[in-house]
Amino acid sequence: MSQDKSALLIIDMINTFDFQGGEKIHENTMNIVGNIRDLKKKAKEAGLPVIYVNDNYGLWQDNMNDIIEECKKGKGKDVIEKLHPDTDDYFIIKPKHSCFFGTQLDILLHQLDVKHLILTGIAGDICVLYTANDAYMREYDMSIPKDCMASETKEDNESAIRIIKKTIDADMTSSKEMTFK
Amino acid sequence: MSQDKSALLIIDMINTFDFQGGEKIHENTMNIVGNIRDLKKKAKEAGLPVIYVNDNYGLWQDNMNDIIEECKKGKGKDVIEKLHPDTDDYFIIKPKHSCFFGTQLDILLHQLDVKHLILTGIAGDICVLYTANDAYMREYDMSIPKDCMASETKEDNESAIRIIKKTIDADMTSSKEMTFK
Amino acid sequence: MSQDKSALLIIDMINTFDFQGGEKIHENTMNIVGNIRDLKKKAKEAGLPVIYVNDNYGLWQDNMNDIIEECKKGKGKDVIEKLHPDTDDYFIIKPKHSCFFGTQLDILLHQLDVKHLILTGIAGDICVLYTANDAYMREYDMSIPKDCMASETKEDNESAIRIIKKTIDADMTSSKEMTFK
Amino acid sequence: MSQDKSALLIIDMINTFDFQGGEKIHENTMNIVGNIRDLKKKAKEAGLPVIYVNDNYGLWQDNMNDIIEECKKGKGKDVIEKLHPDTDDYFIIKPKHSCFFGTQLDILLHQLDVKHLILTGIAGDICVLYTANDAYMREYDMSIPKDCMASETKEDNESAIRIIKKTIDADMTSSKEMTFK
Repeated sequence: MSQDKSALLIIDMINTFDFQGGEKIHENTMNIVGNIRDLKKKAKEAGLPVIYVNDNYGLWQDNMNDIIEECKKGKGKDVIEKLHPDTDDYFIIKPKHSCFFGTQLDILLHQLDVKHLILTGIAGDICVLYTANDAYMREYDMSIPKDCMASETKEDNESAIRIIKKTIDADMTSSKEMTFK
Repeated sequence: MSQDKSALLIIDMINTFDFQGGEKIHENTMNIVGNIRDLKKKAKEAGLPVIYVNDNYGLWQDNMNDIIEECKKGKGKDVIEKLHPDTDDYFIIKPKHSCFFGTQLDILLHQLDVKHLILTGIAGDICVLYTANDAYMREYDMSIPKDCMASETKEDNESAIRIIKKTIDADMTSSKEMTFK
Repeated sequence: MSQDKSALLIIDMINTFDFQGGEKIHENTMNIVGNIRDLKKKAKEAGLPVIYVNDNYGLWQDNMNDIIEECKKGKGKDVIEKLHPDTDDYFIIKPKHSCFFGTQLDILLHQLDVKHLILTGIAGDICVLYTANDAYMREYDMSIPKDCMASETKEDNESAIRIIKKTIDADMTSSKEMTFK
Repeated sequence: MSQDKSALLIIDMINTFDFQGGEKIHENTMNIVGNIRDLKKKAKEAGLPVIYVNDNYGLWQDNMNDIIEECKKGKGKDVIEKLHPDTDDYFIIKPKHSCFFGTQLDILLHQLDVKHLILTGIAGDICVLYTANDAYMREYDMSIPKDCMASETKEDNESAIRIIKKTIDADMTSSKEMTFK
């Protein structure tokens, strides 16, 4: 395995959007879902592992299919149609904001010998931001392509980008310009 | 909710038994599966949450049904028949020895306001022992009924019981004598 | 002990200010140090535990006095003079952004039966923000008085306040208005 | 740095021995303190980092010197005389059984690029055992020289050795035979 193997994380894109502000974040998510899909395609062609990390929606059984079915019922349907997990993608359920908190993510990344993460998904100012800090504290290198994260409002997204740039030392180049060896 | 709410943990009973020593541990497991089933019945009648915590068997998708299916294929079938998770039981997937490491267990217990754990399952000298210490460090009270844990050999089980008694301050009364208010 | 015992956290106020942007953050810190001192006085009169949580400055020995001495040598001297830990204050050393990551903070709070945290200190958009999220994921109630946190620039501080308000559900009332029973 | 850099951990040897069974464990500790001292000498000559990890004795200030002073007052004095931390040794304070729980150990090991741990100290069936499992779950390679761990009784030590051999895959060769490149 390579010295600096990367993995693509897709955060909370399997989503009910059934919460305050959900309508607006759904709208903004539709603007990035194509970018994430293209990036996923490019990543898989280069042999990178793709890891969905997703809220448990209060379903305290670690049961991927139940969560996907729950999210398909409502507004999340059109996002899932464009970005459904493949059978060879990893799928990790998280109970809280950060993808690392109460999950097997760090253990999986260690077993895959991954040192570099590409973070994508929603919400930019919540789960993406706090996952980025948790990854930074664990000393992963990071790319967070700006065109693959969305928040409820433009201002929320800009606040998150400002803080990530200041505190986390991630590469925020657009996904279009990302290349994988 | 009560001040000292309990939960019943059932550890690694959904199992392939497909590893070195698996045959012997399967034999010893058949001697405790009835005890755990009876205890589960008593616990559910008293309204206690029942939480299965189970190895991921290298399936890095949080997908309960896949794990149960995988384990049913082999020697684990007869244990599962006696102790299949109910739809209202919790099911948590663990990647390593301890039920707390890389899982949402601690978060779930906090949300359920559980302060006291009843540990059951296999192997006594591995996942039960190390889970017991992780629970002890998090300051849970504990019962570990001796007739609800099994290991590969009698000596292994006795070593674990010796160490638990010495270091963890758990009540090891037999499950037959346990009563729930 | 009370059901909702509070503790006052003082984050990274024992500081070298010896990093990029340190001069500016020192200036802004001097504007809040009096507020934190007053709040600490009020908290101690009400019997609340006071917990300093502080960067290790690459000194990988858990040695409070060395860290205070190191910080006194430079620009941090005037802050320490106003806010030196008392002998009955707790002092926890952290290696990374969050006060919870790689520290005994959560264990101490559990032993003190604390359920509510008052966060103060620097930098607002780094260690205060990320500690707030880690506390939120652990389901602590929180107050983060706006006049007791500072960042390198006003814009940085405002971004952090915006994100805290949106994602963490903390009371941000000014310290002057805080009362302890 | 080497691909498989090692570190020597010295667990709870700075000790009050002021607890039930303390007298007996002190006696057994005196039988291994020379072995650990010799091993430490050999390790430092080979350039390995030496990390003391030590109980906090209810002193919730991260303050190495206070802890050493506290332990020197009683029965621990003669052990400390033989094994006092050097100024270039690391010193980490732990609040619970495992050296990894609520400490900066894992972060320090990552920064030192250490992949292999040599565990020594007391008690074999408590802090050494549970640290070994926590290291194993984090996928460190391990040596646990049998002549550098002690417990309250011979039987306790043997139970711990049995379980370590069975569950943790550590090299338990005697310290006399350990060589460092």
